Amino acid sequence: MASIVDPNAPNPALEAQAAILARPASEERRMADAIRALAMDAVEKAKSGHPGMPMGMADVATALFTKFVKFDAADPRWPDRDRFVLSAGHGSMLLYALLHLTGHAGMEIEELKRFRQLHSPAAGHPEYGYHPAIETTTGPLGQGISTAVGMALAERHLSARFGKSLVDHRTWVICSDGDLQEGVSHEAAALAGHLGLDKLTVLWDDNHISIDGDTALSFSEDVLKRFQAYGWATKRVDGHDPAQIAAAIAVAQRSKKPTIIACRTIIGFSAPKKAGTAGSHGAPLGADEITAAKSALGWNAEPFTVPEGIKSRWEEAGRRSAGTRRSWLKRLAKHPMRAEFERAIAGKLPENWAEPLQALRATFATEKPKIGSRIASQRALGALVPAVPEMIGGSADLTGSNNTDVKGIPAIVPGNYAGRYIHYGIREHGMAAAMNGMALHGGIIPYSGTFLVFADYLRPAIRLAALMHQRVIHVLTHDSIGLGEDGPTHQPVETIASLRAIPNLAVFRPADAMETAECWELALRRTEGPSVLALSRQALPALRDDAGENRSARGGYVLAEAEGPRAVTLIATGSEVSLAMTARAQLAAQGIQAAVVSLPSWELFAQQDEAYRAATLGDAPRIGIEAALSFGWERWLGPKSAFIGMTGFGASAPAEHLFEHFGITPAAVVAAATKLLAQDGSK
Amino acid sequence: MASIVDPNAPNPALEAQAAILARPASEERRMADAIRALAMDAVEKAKSGHPGMPMGMADVATALFTKFVKFDAADPRWPDRDRFVLSAGHGSMLLYALLHLTGHAGMEIEELKRFRQLHSPAAGHPEYGYHPAIETTTGPLGQGISTAVGMALAERHLSARFGKSLVDHRTWVICSDGDLQEGVSHEAAALAGHLGLDKLTVLWDDNHISIDGDTALSFSEDVLKRFQAYGWATKRVDGHDPAQIAAAIAVAQRSKKPTIIACRTIIGFSAPKKAGTAGSHGAPLGADEITAAKSALGWNAEPFTVPEGIKSRWEEAGRRSAGTRRSWLKRLAKHPMRAEFERAIAGKLPENWAEPLQALRATFATEKPKIGSRIASQRALGALVPAVPEMIGGSADLTGSNNTDVKGIPAIVPGNYAGRYIHYGIREHGMAAAMNGMALHGGIIPYSGTFLVFADYLRPAIRLAALMHQRVIHVLTHDSIGLGEDGPTHQPVETIASLRAIPNLAVFRPADAMETAECWELALRRTEGPSVLALSRQALPALRDDAGENRSARGGYVLAEAEGPRAVTLIATGSEVSLAMTARAQLAAQGIQAAVVSLPSWELFAQQDEAYRAATLGDAPRIGIEAALSFGWERWLGPKSAFIGMTGFGASAPAEHLFEHFGITPAAVVAAATKLLAQDGSK
Repeated sequence: MASIVDPNAPNPALEAQAAILARPASEERRMADAIRALAMDAVEKAKSGHPGMPMGMADVATALFTKFVKFDAADPRWPDRDRFVLSAGHGSMLLYALLHLTGHAGMEIEELKRFRQLHSPAAGHPEYGYHPAIETTTGPLGQGISTAVGMALAERHLSARFGKSLVDHRTWVICSDGDLQEGVSHEAAALAGHLGLDKLTVLWDDNHISIDGDTALSFSEDVLKRFQAYGWATKRVDGHDPAQIAAAIAVAQRSKKPTIIACRTIIGFSAPKKAGTAGSHGAPLGADEITAAKSALGWNAEPFTVPEGIKSRWEEAGRRSAGTRRSWLKRLAKHPMRAEFERAIAGKLPENWAEPLQALRATFATEKPKIGSRIASQRALGALVPAVPEMIGGSADLTGSNNTDVKGIPAIVPGNYAGRYIHYGIREHGMAAAMNGMALHGGIIPYSGTFLVFADYLRPAIRLAALMHQRVIHVLTHDSIGLGEDGPTHQPVETIASLRAIPNLAVFRPADAMETAECWELALRRTEGPSVLALSRQALPALRDDAGENRSARGGYVLAEAEGPRAVTLIATGSEVSLAMTARAQLAAQGIQAAVVSLPSWELFAQQDEAYRAATLGDAPRIGIEAALSFGWERWLGPKSAFIGMTGFGASAPAEHLFEHFGITPAAVVAAATKLLAQDGSK
Repeated sequence: MASIVDPNAPNPALEAQAAILARPASEERRMADAIRALAMDAVEKAKSGHPGMPMGMADVATALFTKFVKFDAADPRWPDRDRFVLSAGHGSMLLYALLHLTGHAGMEIEELKRFRQLHSPAAGHPEYGYHPAIETTTGPLGQGISTAVGMALAERHLSARFGKSLVDHRTWVICSDGDLQEGVSHEAAALAGHLGLDKLTVLWDDNHISIDGDTALSFSEDVLKRFQAYGWATKRVDGHDPAQIAAAIAVAQRSKKPTIIACRTIIGFSAPKKAGTAGSHGAPLGADEITAAKSALGWNAEPFTVPEGIKSRWEEAGRRSAGTRRSWLKRLAKHPMRAEFERAIAGKLPENWAEPLQALRATFATEKPKIGSRIASQRALGALVPAVPEMIGGSADLTGSNNTDVKGIPAIVPGNYAGRYIHYGIREHGMAAAMNGMALHGGIIPYSGTFLVFADYLRPAIRLAALMHQRVIHVLTHDSIGLGEDGPTHQPVETIASLRAIPNLAVFRPADAMETAECWELALRRTEGPSVLALSRQALPALRDDAGENRSARGGYVLAEAEGPRAVTLIATGSEVSLAMTARAQLAAQGIQAAVVSLPSWELFAQQDEAYRAATLGDAPRIGIEAALSFGWERWLGPKSAFIGMTGFGASAPAEHLFEHFGITPAAVVAAATKLLAQDGSK
């Protein structure tokens, strides 16, 4: 990635670099140089990557991992380990070098030689699941630091639940200028400051360089003053002075606030020409520059080799907390809550957790309540949240609209983290990123609330949850023009399609109270990825009186078969299923026999075998009905078909007027059916 | 929207309110009360809406519109008017009441009685285009203030271009707590501080209340300190004291920095029970509360009526700047740049603007360059930007990767706004929102740059551009796994589908240099909405040597007809079109005659008549080819078809390995074709 900075401009960093290199190389410096050498070698061999950041932050990372981070290379999944997030994911070689040097299995030198190659754990950006010591996927800037806020919050909550003897660890972040410019980090940092997450420490690579060149091109704010305004402690250090760095981190460990430390560094440190320039950010340095950099460091080892003395010091660092871990294991073994702790961390649901929900489904079957699916969701939460202590809810300041709160469940507040509901503020993106962190930390199943249309604000974090296979549940209400007067800015029309397009995200749009309870059960059982519940504001008639099988589990099913051979199949989701049922009755009155298929989850339906799908959708002409755009519906409709829904943005008016205005009515379905059958000649 | 605040908690606001109401009602207070009465009446009649904010901010709005905002109700589109943005769009009755009271045609009392009804200009949230005095659509929090940053920047640039005598106006914003919690406002505010947009003034409704209750639930940062860190001037006033408000705004007018004024207000001011609580935020107050509120104000007029004396004072305010406008018109009439100014403001392109682009297309036809479409885009910009002075480019810190810069075109920098390139920083969302503001202001055609996958960060602002029919162009490069090593976080797979789902957004994915130039021409001609150019990182062979007709204008076309009757039609976009051409040759070697259809824009193709689409796609079995998910492709494929593309997220490896790994190769197309034809029995 080219720089637009004047290449002929003098480079002040080189002078500072020379001064640092003139000092006798301390042991810390030598250990840091190992990171630098490996980063240069791996990027050069891959002919692709970002050497500048690992070279600039090597001294900070060395201080952090040799003196502070609590981890044991022998068990990277130790539940009480400190969490480390490399928010500046492009500097992935920093993390891979650390994992290799500290002796983590699965990050041997051969893997570093395969940096950025297919199936390598040393991928271009850190990818969760590629190596057990990678805590989260980073790369999209702002996500890592915001995810870390969720991890730090998870630690506080679980410590309140299980006690300090089982849960007592810190969360560390290395971030870049870009992370701090991204809006999501503002939302998450403000939340962390508000909640007083004092065990969160952010080390900011303050290198004054971004891809376009000097950060002064676009970035002139007083970052530390901004974080002070959030309620953070702040510190400024020379990022190449091990003593200063260690002293600042030691202060952060004692701070009663989250702490950000600005580490003034030289990007690409030791590169004789490219240090301190964007030229070292995102491209290999080139053989000559690498040779010169290594000689400037006094680094004589062959590429991809680390002198024994330095390697052994690093491996000692990897064993630093082994004793701490052993005593933790002893405490766990004797701990009265051991089984519960292990269950929670493993992500297993409690025994009999589903019984209250099953009871609610039985009630729904008899009561047949006509309520908004957001209300049905709240009743489902009333059954689930007390039974599943891992569930932690919240809303981006729409609690009363999303109905995400549960009577008697207290909120998490500054200084008391035992509660199980979070007032995220009007911070949808920060909420979703923090939820990813809670799920990644383990021991928590987070669910959120906002309006469906604001899924656009959550989207980058939802994508990461899907990519990382995290059980994160988003309760997104007001799911169509059915919300009425708030108008097109608040009415999703393309939103459901845009979510269905995300791989490994399950989108549920239940048709009534029964389906809502079923979809909640499915979302909770779904350990392999995130779920979205798209729920109505308006009341929906009950369509089901059977509380037996969870019929939503197959994604779609015949809700009402045609009386006799099918003339037409009406396929609908959510609030439009009852509309389809009305149309079915009106068609029957005209002697047209229609079946109604409810399709609460396209993803689950797509996973059924061909035969089931074919039998469900049938051979008759099909009409899709959804108060949204038709984008994607062709998948279920086929050649002889029609679609009743939206063709563009919504409008501001009472909901019933809008359904009339946009022609989403039983009459429209009847008209479409008769037209289809006339063409079809098969009526 | 319900509050979760303890209803039995004492309400400190009521005491403060009593003290204010005890003062003799000044004329300003009476004028403000007119806003309060109309807000209460309209929300009550609509049985829906947000009375609290207009009632709380009425005094601030009265000071602003009677003393400061430069506008003339007789011509709400006067180009040199001040821009006013109600970022807290839910308080729309504040704006509608102001427009009504100041005598704007089209906002008569009858319209206020139709608040939130179908086709009313007084929609639930302010909707751009519903009334000429509505500067932008607001409602999704954070967007209004960020859009206003773009308006303020547009003013500075156009003032530099046309001179102070034609362009010299301010931008005013009323925003809420929510606006300031949203990440996008952080990005835009930091940019405004960096660029020193001193004619931007934000009035923050500091009412300590959000939907969930007291903002202390989630919002405890020092907002003003944060804005000082951005380089803003800050002030704090009693939002119910006209003198304090006016004094603070007067200071802001002289400030050399953008200014934010925290206006401490009581939400729902005058409501005897609900004032100062979330209860007044988002629901009608109810008849009794309204009666009591009006008597507390000493307001005796009938609903929807304003006493003559007060109305006439408001109408004077609506005429305050009439003289200023007349003298501006005189200056314009004599101004040497009049024609150019009027052309630019009208959004008309310069005469012969397309000639350099046509010349470039001719060059491409002969040169047949094998370059990435991002490079072709940069060459197109080299032809367009010098010819179209309204074009202002930029990138979210990926200039060298997006190739959005043009040689010799200087950047906009603090204090000098004559440039035409913006270093937005790593602020994708703020960039897109600011671009909306530049387009809405008029006189500017903004284009951006970031990676396609980060469209997720832009999305809420893209949606608004589509809703508002604004010509905003996003250059989104690195459009598939073709970007290689950066891996799944950077590889769009669902992104193109999610953009195609947005109504009134044109998505272009050109196949080579020629199509890239054609798509740029189409994006610029497209005045009715935003466009996205999805461009490749990797080099693409030239497929076209005809520089005549803009063949991309129909969205899709037959690039290569089958030799003889079509056995199969290969339909591809962007980088996969050349892959389809290779497959076509390999199929021909097997005696299978394939046509290749290039589909650079689904939206434009969908607008063609049925006959053209049928002829283009043909009756033969179809194979869709795109290095993305198939979501949405069924629209073009039909029953006998196959799709070659992605089935999930990407991976980190060199691009050529990835295309092999994911089976997006000519061989895979050939295999799919032979399989299809075997089933088909028609080979």
